Amino acid sequence: MAKGITKRSEDYSRWYTDVIAAAKMADYSPVRGCMVIRPTGYAIWEKMQAGLDKMFKETGHVNAYFPCFIPESFMKKEAEHVEGFAPECAIVTHGGGKKLDEPLYVRPTSETIIWSMYKNWIQSHRDLPILINQWANVVRWEMRTRLFLRTTEFLWQEGHTAHATAEEAEAETRQMLEVYRTFAEEYMAMPVIPGIKTENEKFAGAERTYCIEAMMQDGKALQAGTSHNLGQNFAKAFDVTYQTEAGVREHVWATSWGVSTRLIGALIMTHSDDNGLVVPPKLAPLQTVLVPIWRGDDERAQILERANQLAADWKGKFSYKIDDRDNYRPGWKFNEWEKAGVPIRLEMGPKDLANNVVVMVRRDTGEKEILSQENLTAKISATLDAIQKNLYDNALDFREKNTHTVDTYDEFKERLENESGFYWVHWDGTTETEQRLQAETKATIRLIPLAPEPEPGKCMITGKPSPHRVLVAKAY
Amino acid sequence: MAKGITKRSEDYSRWYTDVIAAAKMADYSPVRGCMVIRPTGYAIWEKMQAGLDKMFKETGHVNAYFPCFIPESFMKKEAEHVEGFAPECAIVTHGGGKKLDEPLYVRPTSETIIWSMYKNWIQSHRDLPILINQWANVVRWEMRTRLFLRTTEFLWQEGHTAHATAEEAEAETRQMLEVYRTFAEEYMAMPVIPGIKTENEKFAGAERTYCIEAMMQDGKALQAGTSHNLGQNFAKAFDVTYQTEAGVREHVWATSWGVSTRLIGALIMTHSDDNGLVVPPKLAPLQTVLVPIWRGDDERAQILERANQLAADWKGKFSYKIDDRDNYRPGWKFNEWEKAGVPIRLEMGPKDLANNVVVMVRRDTGEKEILSQENLTAKISATLDAIQKNLYDNALDFREKNTHTVDTYDEFKERLENESGFYWVHWDGTTETEQRLQAETKATIRLIPLAPEPEPGKCMITGKPSPHRVLVAKAY
Repeated sequence: MAKGITKRSEDYSRWYTDVIAAAKMADYSPVRGCMVIRPTGYAIWEKMQAGLDKMFKETGHVNAYFPCFIPESFMKKEAEHVEGFAPECAIVTHGGGKKLDEPLYVRPTSETIIWSMYKNWIQSHRDLPILINQWANVVRWEMRTRLFLRTTEFLWQEGHTAHATAEEAEAETRQMLEVYRTFAEEYMAMPVIPGIKTENEKFAGAERTYCIEAMMQDGKALQAGTSHNLGQNFAKAFDVTYQTEAGVREHVWATSWGVSTRLIGALIMTHSDDNGLVVPPKLAPLQTVLVPIWRGDDERAQILERANQLAADWKGKFSYKIDDRDNYRPGWKFNEWEKAGVPIRLEMGPKDLANNVVVMVRRDTGEKEILSQENLTAKISATLDAIQKNLYDNALDFREKNTHTVDTYDEFKERLENESGFYWVHWDGTTETEQRLQAETKATIRLIPLAPEPEPGKCMITGKPSPHRVLVAKAY
Repeated sequence: MAKGITKRSEDYSRWYTDVIAAAKMADYSPVRGCMVIRPTGYAIWEKMQAGLDKMFKETGHVNAYFPCFIPESFMKKEAEHVEGFAPECAIVTHGGGKKLDEPLYVRPTSETIIWSMYKNWIQSHRDLPILINQWANVVRWEMRTRLFLRTTEFLWQEGHTAHATAEEAEAETRQMLEVYRTFAEEYMAMPVIPGIKTENEKFAGAERTYCIEAMMQDGKALQAGTSHNLGQNFAKAFDVTYQTEAGVREHVWATSWGVSTRLIGALIMTHSDDNGLVVPPKLAPLQTVLVPIWRGDDERAQILERANQLAADWKGKFSYKIDDRDNYRPGWKFNEWEKAGVPIRLEMGPKDLANNVVVMVRRDTGEKEILSQENLTAKISATLDAIQKNLYDNALDFREKNTHTVDTYDEFKERLENESGFYWVHWDGTTETEQRLQAETKATIRLIPLAPEPEPGKCMITGKPSPHRVLVAKAY
């Protein structure tokens, strides 16, 4: 257990918690199931927000803010919705020193409060589409919690759109799934499989839920984002209609889609190693740290002067810090920045100064390289790109190595016992079989592929016909 | 009542609500006292956040996130704090279908939950200072609410810092007051007076509260931001100590400071007019709108082609939109953008095209100017700067015209009846007199100046000695 971090091979779950603690990313709070996101963790969330928000705006969305409280009667207007969410809500019963006439639910998701407002905003086809996103905190009373992955309160974004036609709503749902896929792969360097949830796993109140699923380093699946086609369910529950160009009143079509601070957990579990956090350069709040090495004030002054000269060229190209703290030794600093997941560490001592070089250490591979101080900026930029790509390639390679195709239930159960991972199997399409699978193996159907290869076969459990394979795994 | 907006001179309060409705900035929600911030309003909040966040980071602060729930026992640890806040809290009594052992308060402010964490994070002088800010929603159960100005839930930022010495904490408190003053004046174009709150008006749990006060167009004061020196009150309540360099354990010193979506209300009431919203260019999500004027498809194509040629030079210099919607007439568009407060409107029709000119209309003055299409970009940029300056100058001028110095209580009461505004008066420094003033006139002491001119006089109410004047006004 080097540097206070348990090895993955010893105890994966403990390793995860240790990485978070070592990087000071988050802490449990004194409030049951709620976490504190510390500055190192929050800075990654800010980078995620910036990346996603840009993509949302490029696809025509605007931000707004709706109340965090939802009247109980609103929750009850959509039957499946209340059944799914009410049991896990926090409920405000008193306000301003008095018992409330109607209890307020702290939002677990905002479909109901938002559609109660859309009713006022939508009259004509000219008011459509509405393309709104909200950045907010939400609360779901979880029994078993885990930093970032499952907490009673978490931060997220929730898009809520309103459309004139079913086709537009479906196109929006698919577009946002694609935005999430792009973000996961290009920013988080985390390969994902897009697909459709089963009836049993879909969002409470949706017609159809799309998702992206990623594989963590222990072979388990993690649902990283969902995009729901809500059909006319919420428009009907809140009686939201619009007048078509032809003058007819019709119910509005809806979507909602979201990702949360859970992505930070996914990021950690995809890339980090036994030395601590690893952050892909595109989401690293600090991309490069230069640790100067000196003895005595003269050397200190010389090294820092050169460091600042070199760094003058870095502004606007990548984020950096010169760690000139006097009260810590270089070795301590190396360790700290390693645990914090900074992609590139540069070291420069008196000999390096004399030789006109710096030492570069990559966080992803641990490789050391001695670089000329000439063209250093370009070399750092290129290495940041290389790290981003390498992290993605490694994660994809890992997923491929741990993805299996099996045909019998016995083989499935036996392999699952020994090898966690993704399993492509045949399923008869019934909720009954799905629930039996889960009860007997703790694995779940993660998704039905978006465009499944037609491959008729037999359900591995019941032997009934199956048109194509589905993805099964144990999941977070 | 032109365009659905009541005149300020007729009904100021109704005018305010009408401006918000006409610009689609916010709506009351079905949840008592809670508002919905619509995209136009939220986009201004995003600009405010960006400006403030940059200034916070430049002064060394980082962001983090703490739970929205606070255990009742935590609220009660600081005696003044609980007395001030408990009566206006929303209280969660049930979670996950069960009654909670201990009720949770939805945060009205986060000192207590944050200092319970700082206790774990602070051991040595090397752990200090902690300079953390949080962007969050908070809830205070208000009896009388008003969009943006006073709502049960609102959005804000709250800084919470921890320091080794009283001097550092005081310097931080004053620094953040100065950040707020700069933001109010340079971004919001809203002149403010910085000062110190009376004992009676200070934050519940603070040693000393600094504030900035602005004058609205009806002459009333609005508190636009506060910065609190909390002394060792919260460190003592949560037993947060650190080991000094000399090896002694001492309690930590604290500050907190915040501004909220209330600033959007202040912005509206400072600059808007009888035609609707006016937004200073630095906070305008959309700074320039070009409305093309055409008859028939040929003209449409020609005008839009030129508009796009002109706009090619605007990217990165200011935000703009070419309003090429077919289903609205130019006059309707002019009106809409005027109500939305866009600083500059450009109009371009076939004659303008032939003459190589565009018509520019300033939102602040309504002035029309015919501009050559040559050097148009520079002219627009310069006009945006001029509008920003003009709005500030006008607001300052208005404040000066409505600021009075009076010496007797009779004169004060008589003038206050007829002229709302700021009054510099002598006060004997007692809470008793302060409360009498408020009960009898509904005016309050807004602040004691930061560096008061020594001007010995007599309290206008009791005749007792007063070392200098204080600022009195009716307030939001």
